[in-house]
Amino acid sequence: MLDKVRVILVGTTDQRNIGSAARAMKTMGIHELVLVQPEELPEGKAQALAAGATDVLAKAQIMDSLADALADCQLVLATSARNRTLDWPQLTPREAGEKAVQEGLAGAKVAIVFGREASGLTNEELQMADFHLHIPANPEYSSLNLAMAVQTVCYEVRMAALAAAEAPESVRSSDVEYPLHDDIEGFYAHLERVLGHTGFIIRKHPGMVMTKLRRLFNRARPEKNELNILRGVLSSVERLAPSNEKRSPD
Amino acid sequence: MLDKVRVILVGTTDQRNIGSAARAMKTMGIHELVLVQPEELPEGKAQALAAGATDVLAKAQIMDSLADALADCQLVLATSARNRTLDWPQLTPREAGEKAVQEGLAGAKVAIVFGREASGLTNEELQMADFHLHIPANPEYSSLNLAMAVQTVCYEVRMAALAAAEAPESVRSSDVEYPLHDDIEGFYAHLERVLGHTGFIIRKHPGMVMTKLRRLFNRARPEKNELNILRGVLSSVERLAPSNEKRSPD
Repeated sequence: MLDKVRVILVGTTDQRNIGSAARAMKTMGIHELVLVQPEELPEGKAQALAAGATDVLAKAQIMDSLADALADCQLVLATSARNRTLDWPQLTPREAGEKAVQEGLAGAKVAIVFGREASGLTNEELQMADFHLHIPANPEYSSLNLAMAVQTVCYEVRMAALAAAEAPESVRSSDVEYPLHDDIEGFYAHLERVLGHTGFIIRKHPGMVMTKLRRLFNRARPEKNELNILRGVLSSVERLAPSNEKRSPD
Repeated sequence: MLDKVRVILVGTTDQRNIGSAARAMKTMGIHELVLVQPEELPEGKAQALAAGATDVLAKAQIMDSLADALADCQLVLATSARNRTLDWPQLTPREAGEKAVQEGLAGAKVAIVFGREASGLTNEELQMADFHLHIPANPEYSSLNLAMAVQTVCYEVRMAALAAAEAPESVRSSDVEYPLHDDIEGFYAHLERVLGHTGFIIRKHPGMVMTKLRRLFNRARPEKNELNILRGVLSSVERLAPSNEKRSPD
């Protein structure tokens, strides 16, 4: 199931970290790498550090946005420092490895997202994730090198995959079908539109409403059929009254 | 108990790996480093890669033999590739972390030994260990960078230490305020009323909609403030159009 896992590096500053990450991935049996807006393209320095994993580097896709990189994924795990403003469901690397393997075995495409060396992922990027993944590092010095974080998380995924391979079939998979990340984002866009329509969100002062609703729904993790129900509810509200959006007076 | 752990690097070729190993150790809360006959002394390049862990590097002891470095230790774990000629007791990194913590908590000094980048530890060195420690890497490419192996093993030691520290009082309370059951039921009643209003639920054929929505929201377990937002959303829909509920013709 390790071929269901995509590692995504967002805005990497130093190509050497891309090379080291590729090597770390391959030692754990994970081969799919996507780079979102890297500041340096992986060239000679990255290849040197990739050592025997230059094939991972050569096949790496480069994309313009995290949303594109996630479009066909069903489970999105994003690494983050502890985040007090964004109170998202949090997993340890071990829990993340187990979840990735459980859902990967059920057929889901799994993305694991790593942020910039200095600043990590933005709140906007973090809100695209189903779960945040936090490595419980030394609070006095928690700064893992990017590729070290990749190594640690991929190690946990591999350990979970090896454990699952040894476990009896029955404890493995669930039948639940989850929507694509793109469909989830489509729902949030629809929800925001409808809440603008009903006046619950004021266009000029959106505040934290959408963030709070994302947090709530992500915690529930809607299944595919549930998402369809929610979309149906939103459409029924739109039909209730023709769009009478208040245009801004200026 | 992390102060009971000593990391020993034997015959390291590249000082940069010593620097990266120091950083890896410190992020996991492990500070004691011993270098046995390093080929390069850790200087500028090592310091650059140690980043915020130059203190670990500065305090590192340099020794002439592994036997010296192990002299005052009670538990010795040595990393190795799978070794067919030496049939030693083997641990996974997880088992090694648990054993290190278990014995460290009982007062033992614990050594974890890592070999040369290219050739690992000699059979003679491996025989000084109580246990061998093998990272179950991809058999097609099992070559972890030295500092990556240090990171992975130190991570497991830290995880075991955290688990041991939390074991007695593991059921922590959170600050989250949950609504009363009555308030939850009030929300569902309101939701059903609004969905009747929008026409999403047809009074005579309600079907399973409410059951499915209850299942979804119960899974999320809305907090008190989140329930208030949801109630606000419903009220905004009601205000959108005056109640035009179709009365049943009979």
